[in-house]
Amino acid sequence: MQLFETYESEVRSYCRNFPKVFVTAKGSSLTDETGRTYLDFFAGAGALNYGHNPDDMQKALVRYVTSNGVTHSLDMYTGAKREFIQAFQDIVLHPRGMSYKMMFPGPTGTNAVEAAIKLARKVTGRSSVLSFTNAFHGMTLGSLALTGNETKRNGAGVPLNDSPTLPFDGYFGKDIDTIDILDQYLSDPSSGLDKPAAFIVETVQAEGGVNPARFTWLRRLARLAKQHEILLIVDDIQVGCGRTGPFFSFEPAGIQPDLICLSKSLSGYGIPLSIVLIQPQWDQWSPGEHNGTFRGHNLAFVTATQALQRWKTDELSQAVLDKGELVEKALEEIADQYPDEQLKVRGRGLIWGLDFQDSEKAGAVARCCFEAGLIIETAGAQDQVVKVLPALTISPEELANGLNILKSAVARVCATTAEPVGHSLS
Amino acid sequence: MQLFETYESEVRSYCRNFPKVFVTAKGSSLTDETGRTYLDFFAGAGALNYGHNPDDMQKALVRYVTSNGVTHSLDMYTGAKREFIQAFQDIVLHPRGMSYKMMFPGPTGTNAVEAAIKLARKVTGRSSVLSFTNAFHGMTLGSLALTGNETKRNGAGVPLNDSPTLPFDGYFGKDIDTIDILDQYLSDPSSGLDKPAAFIVETVQAEGGVNPARFTWLRRLARLAKQHEILLIVDDIQVGCGRTGPFFSFEPAGIQPDLICLSKSLSGYGIPLSIVLIQPQWDQWSPGEHNGTFRGHNLAFVTATQALQRWKTDELSQAVLDKGELVEKALEEIADQYPDEQLKVRGRGLIWGLDFQDSEKAGAVARCCFEAGLIIETAGAQDQVVKVLPALTISPEELANGLNILKSAVARVCATTAEPVGHSLS
Amino acid sequence: MQLFETYESEVRSYCRNFPKVFVTAKGSSLTDETGRTYLDFFAGAGALNYGHNPDDMQKALVRYVTSNGVTHSLDMYTGAKREFIQAFQDIVLHPRGMSYKMMFPGPTGTNAVEAAIKLARKVTGRSSVLSFTNAFHGMTLGSLALTGNETKRNGAGVPLNDSPTLPFDGYFGKDIDTIDILDQYLSDPSSGLDKPAAFIVETVQAEGGVNPARFTWLRRLARLAKQHEILLIVDDIQVGCGRTGPFFSFEPAGIQPDLICLSKSLSGYGIPLSIVLIQPQWDQWSPGEHNGTFRGHNLAFVTATQALQRWKTDELSQAVLDKGELVEKALEEIADQYPDEQLKVRGRGLIWGLDFQDSEKAGAVARCCFEAGLIIETAGAQDQVVKVLPALTISPEELANGLNILKSAVARVCATTAEPVGHSLS
Amino acid sequence: MQLFETYESEVRSYCRNFPKVFVTAKGSSLTDETGRTYLDFFAGAGALNYGHNPDDMQKALVRYVTSNGVTHSLDMYTGAKREFIQAFQDIVLHPRGMSYKMMFPGPTGTNAVEAAIKLARKVTGRSSVLSFTNAFHGMTLGSLALTGNETKRNGAGVPLNDSPTLPFDGYFGKDIDTIDILDQYLSDPSSGLDKPAAFIVETVQAEGGVNPARFTWLRRLARLAKQHEILLIVDDIQVGCGRTGPFFSFEPAGIQPDLICLSKSLSGYGIPLSIVLIQPQWDQWSPGEHNGTFRGHNLAFVTATQALQRWKTDELSQAVLDKGELVEKALEEIADQYPDEQLKVRGRGLIWGLDFQDSEKAGAVARCCFEAGLIIETAGAQDQVVKVLPALTISPEELANGLNILKSAVARVCATTAEPVGHSLS
Repeated sequence: MQLFETYESEVRSYCRNFPKVFVTAKGSSLTDETGRTYLDFFAGAGALNYGHNPDDMQKALVRYVTSNGVTHSLDMYTGAKREFIQAFQDIVLHPRGMSYKMMFPGPTGTNAVEAAIKLARKVTGRSSVLSFTNAFHGMTLGSLALTGNETKRNGAGVPLNDSPTLPFDGYFGKDIDTIDILDQYLSDPSSGLDKPAAFIVETVQAEGGVNPARFTWLRRLARLAKQHEILLIVDDIQVGCGRTGPFFSFEPAGIQPDLICLSKSLSGYGIPLSIVLIQPQWDQWSPGEHNGTFRGHNLAFVTATQALQRWKTDELSQAVLDKGELVEKALEEIADQYPDEQLKVRGRGLIWGLDFQDSEKAGAVARCCFEAGLIIETAGAQDQVVKVLPALTISPEELANGLNILKSAVARVCATTAEPVGHSLS
Repeated sequence: MQLFETYESEVRSYCRNFPKVFVTAKGSSLTDETGRTYLDFFAGAGALNYGHNPDDMQKALVRYVTSNGVTHSLDMYTGAKREFIQAFQDIVLHPRGMSYKMMFPGPTGTNAVEAAIKLARKVTGRSSVLSFTNAFHGMTLGSLALTGNETKRNGAGVPLNDSPTLPFDGYFGKDIDTIDILDQYLSDPSSGLDKPAAFIVETVQAEGGVNPARFTWLRRLARLAKQHEILLIVDDIQVGCGRTGPFFSFEPAGIQPDLICLSKSLSGYGIPLSIVLIQPQWDQWSPGEHNGTFRGHNLAFVTATQALQRWKTDELSQAVLDKGELVEKALEEIADQYPDEQLKVRGRGLIWGLDFQDSEKAGAVARCCFEAGLIIETAGAQDQVVKVLPALTISPEELANGLNILKSAVARVCATTAEPVGHSLS
Repeated sequence: MQLFETYESEVRSYCRNFPKVFVTAKGSSLTDETGRTYLDFFAGAGALNYGHNPDDMQKALVRYVTSNGVTHSLDMYTGAKREFIQAFQDIVLHPRGMSYKMMFPGPTGTNAVEAAIKLARKVTGRSSVLSFTNAFHGMTLGSLALTGNETKRNGAGVPLNDSPTLPFDGYFGKDIDTIDILDQYLSDPSSGLDKPAAFIVETVQAEGGVNPARFTWLRRLARLAKQHEILLIVDDIQVGCGRTGPFFSFEPAGIQPDLICLSKSLSGYGIPLSIVLIQPQWDQWSPGEHNGTFRGHNLAFVTATQALQRWKTDELSQAVLDKGELVEKALEEIADQYPDEQLKVRGRGLIWGLDFQDSEKAGAVARCCFEAGLIIETAGAQDQVVKVLPALTISPEELANGLNILKSAVARVCATTAEPVGHSLS
Repeated sequence: MQLFETYESEVRSYCRNFPKVFVTAKGSSLTDETGRTYLDFFAGAGALNYGHNPDDMQKALVRYVTSNGVTHSLDMYTGAKREFIQAFQDIVLHPRGMSYKMMFPGPTGTNAVEAAIKLARKVTGRSSVLSFTNAFHGMTLGSLALTGNETKRNGAGVPLNDSPTLPFDGYFGKDIDTIDILDQYLSDPSSGLDKPAAFIVETVQAEGGVNPARFTWLRRLARLAKQHEILLIVDDIQVGCGRTGPFFSFEPAGIQPDLICLSKSLSGYGIPLSIVLIQPQWDQWSPGEHNGTFRGHNLAFVTATQALQRWKTDELSQAVLDKGELVEKALEEIADQYPDEQLKVRGRGLIWGLDFQDSEKAGAVARCCFEAGLIIETAGAQDQVVKVLPALTISPEELANGLNILKSAVARVCATTAEPVGHSLS
């Protein structure tokens, strides 16, 4: 580890919380160089929805590599790309009655966001893109302007503009429907809020502290967008690909965004891939107007096509919802045990947050978990939320195991910080 | 191909010039689905310096995948990452007397550029980054502002700011040393040019039409930067990793940039990877201040480590220079054959441009080449330059072959467009 | 008038509503070239609080001019300037316990606003200045960014940035205290709202449709500013100089802004003058850092000094409040007469709005008034508010007269647009 | 003076160089409160081309004021405005074959510039306005972005954008015609310089150090603008109104700009007034799209109309050229006397600079002059130029007098800083 400290930039972060050198991984397990195994409730920040190195993708990948399949091709046509497009249309879009063109920007989430907002600006002729409080959309300049986090914003070194921030669902409490606030801003020609090219929204704000928007709110947002001729972009990078149950997180809201960004778990195998889905009437790009060296990444196409096979039935979707209920129940039990702490439980599908409203406690819980062999992250404006994000394919035993470790960690931390007569470790 | 036209966004571009579906590739050959083989003078726009699917990396990759090596790990420590860092320090940096910290941003070139300019702004407290005429640095908002191409800039949909453009070496002809222009702008407190955080420069502008800067110009630029306390960023994404002979393109100029961006051929295998090299005094990042899901891409570390083995000796470097001379000679011969066309030959190492000063001719030549089985690209402000960019590992026979095809294509195009009594195809 | 239409730019506006050529003016009367006299309820949009050509100032002005007093002096010291500064300190600031440095920017309101926000950015090192919905702060680029009106904003031709807009008092109805909204945005490090250099606020939004902020709201705003180390700028250009009763409009709220902008009625005689009042700790300008040719306008100093004599006692202040009550009562009576119209009455001191929530009706009322010899303006996001803005020195008879004309005009318009059996003209 | 130091902001500047309290002024004389008289070679930074308080204007002003002429009228029609428009069309525009609409923005130079660039952006749909090295266009945000001076730019507190700076005539020495540089930037679609809405140029850069552009350069600039469909704005605020001889400074170049900004000496009496002249096809403003409280300033119209009477013949114009020759000759003599100093003499009409290339010397000369009773300013990027700017109406004796004082001051300063055996004061 000395080597990392000497040669790697100070910008490194997760390694500071999980200071081990990992070497192999399978399913929901990571193994470090000493042979110790860790249970994974982090899932590559949402990039490993199907767990580490799933067998079928691994085989497909090795088969492709060993057969000298084209690896790098920019945006030339390849057999691997064709199969992916076909599978995505047949398995994902067509059964959902969705008609979208597919764009392959650089293979990271922020690249997809940059491409989407560029297109929204182009087709509307307007400059601003409206994002929401506590949003996270990426670190390149255009995406960063849409991201709420102050520390990350200040890193830009220039004012971040053309990106007003408006209140996400519930931001001002239960009594204020923030769509009313948006509506008034947009309907008043003297509000000072310039009509935006687009709204960009996460249906569940993941980095922002696991904040799910209500479906009614999303529907009102979509209607408001339509009414004002504003494009609706759903950034489904972290909570798409089945994270909340259905393939797209917005399906239960019954909306069809103008543009959709996917990445993270899209390749299924943790290798970089991203796409922007575009309603055909907005596909007004000129050839090459947005490009990038790795916009055709065939290894990713191969594993992604394999990953999509899981979506031919509802089985996975249902399993996510079922396991999600287990997680919710376990977290509610934990919260109930410490009424003084006023812990809050929020989530959907298999993304859940336990909000301590206290970054030290949340951090202490995550550290305790790691000591006990569970990798789990914190999120939120002040890292005050412990974020439960297992692979969708985690086994019931592993899930129970991890939740138990979490429960014990909370017990340890909340006992310590509460009254002298503490709760004993379960 | 129908499927691509139906479902893929209009933004697709290279596939329009090379309208075949490619399936396998090895070395300097690409094979389409009908079994036809093409010679590759394009090399993934610089991402395939070692050719397609080189055996040693292929083996290392398969070995890693089949052993369940960690694939995705964000910026956690992994064995694969440690090996790559060690190899990069030992093989590349240390022998060159270079002391740099390594940063792993998202795995694309534009992400490396965004990270570098963000850091430059942070450490200097200044907002603008000065780039050069005909530069290309990427498509995300921060990088796009540094890119010269008008069509791509207009795609932004917002004014691109904090990024003045100044003349690259030779931009105003032989009699003007453009460093004098920069110097005057920067020395005059009333020039209206705000002191920038950094210069960002390509030593050979690749997309800009294959424009090599003279080493004296680069040295003056580095001195000017130092004198005004401006950071010097070299974007070595396309012409680093041996493209011009030495590992870094700026080595012959004897300069040590403050920040260096690498990507494209860094993984060696055409899979996404990028790094920013940072002189230790500028490594002032806070943990996590710039992040990204795929900033740890272990498959790329594995192939990149393997690729670096080629740099333990000068052999590859010398081979590049030798082959480069062959290319230069061949292009000069072509140019000499058509004095009326005033073709210009420019390049270094194994990146060469044949400038037709006429986009139609250049395009026609590239199309003729493709018909004859050679994949070759055009570049430049008006796509007026045919760009010769073979793999560094191309065999002498393949190289001769490709140059012959090019020669014939030029003959065909220039004969047609010139006097009725044309040159016959060779 | 033909001459104006031929030679003056299409940008001209008030002349379209009051299409007469005016030649002389005194007190609350304007006389056109045909000799017809008009009663003035417009007062130069707040620049003529003491009426047209008041005798004492007229005399002082003529005396100064005929004695060859220095007219133009940039920011050199002059006797006229010294007298003004002395009078302003002695009569205005000192009795109110206010300690402020005086800055003389260019002699228009927008210039004062530009200077104030520049200074706020300088002393805080932050880039954004937060303004409010329906605000009006001027037309130069920095001020325009702070102005709410969409048409005027679109005139900029560039995105207006560094200027988020937040809800003014009452913007979201009675149940929401918009300070809570500000507070949450500012307290949440992930809200996406960058900490601003300053708030800029009008205590009564004049152009915005006559929206008075409650004193409690202003106090909370001032406290919030202090708590977050944000500067508070009060733009008292239209409603300062006694318009609401006290010299400064914010006096009843008991706050002391960090910076105060004054212009319009400051010279008293309708000639250009503006100042920025600066709490001494913020007076961090370098000499000449903000300048302008007409920043010393001695004719204005002479009349302004004379105008200040009115503020040695409370008499004028009290008269404004008394007349204001008459206006309020008259407007309420009008509103009560047309319950179906749901007219709204808002104001303070001698600035009042009768809100028709319908731009056509408000416009029709203003036109009827003009036909009947009363000059009166509309304001608000959609020009839906008739704005009563007489000189502070208007006589009770003139005031009653004008209100009667207004009453009749409303009767005419509302009768027409309401039920067939209309109200007859009174 | 104590009072100023106590109560006036630190931003004050000229008063620091001329630390006296001035009370009366006539022609080219200013008198301080002790009765000492100063000769004026500064002319209100160009706002007093006709000297202080000229009799005819003084009379007209007093007559208007005492007759209760309308003083303030926003942009309503008044008799005084009509007379001014008529006189301007008849005396200035029509005889020169110029067809322009007249716009009355706020009455300061920067307001005229803001209006002009706003209109240029609107009619072209482009965002950037290109200005020149060492330019000065004002202090409000839009104008400041076009101003070269670093200290003033840094005062903005935000990055100044949409305003690239390109080299003024002669900026890179005699061998480079900077129009070639502009042309190449604009003709190359990959230069990175976005096509601007407009060029804005001073024909003689006054604050920038008295840099006259050659007429051929101005003509090439106008042609380049036309060719690229870029608007040409001439900022004639300081050197228009006869400063260089003809009414407009660009007349000898034979060009007709798209937009022209005038202010400073326009009112003739040193009171605020500005106009934008607009070629009719560009007068695409919506009513009220740019406004301002003091855009109708009738006292200024009255004196301005009177001032224009001087332009019915060529007499004044010729007198300026004649006196200009005297100044040039005197300065050249001074320069010749100190060959080691390499003093440079530049100017046109009655604006001349003596460039010391050394701010300390230039400052010392100005101080010596003031001690000897001559008010004279420095200009240039480093205040290295002594700027001779007398009233156009200065008498030959006064002119000779002032030049003698200047000569002696230079002698004193250059003797001191040169060899021990100094020149004695003449």
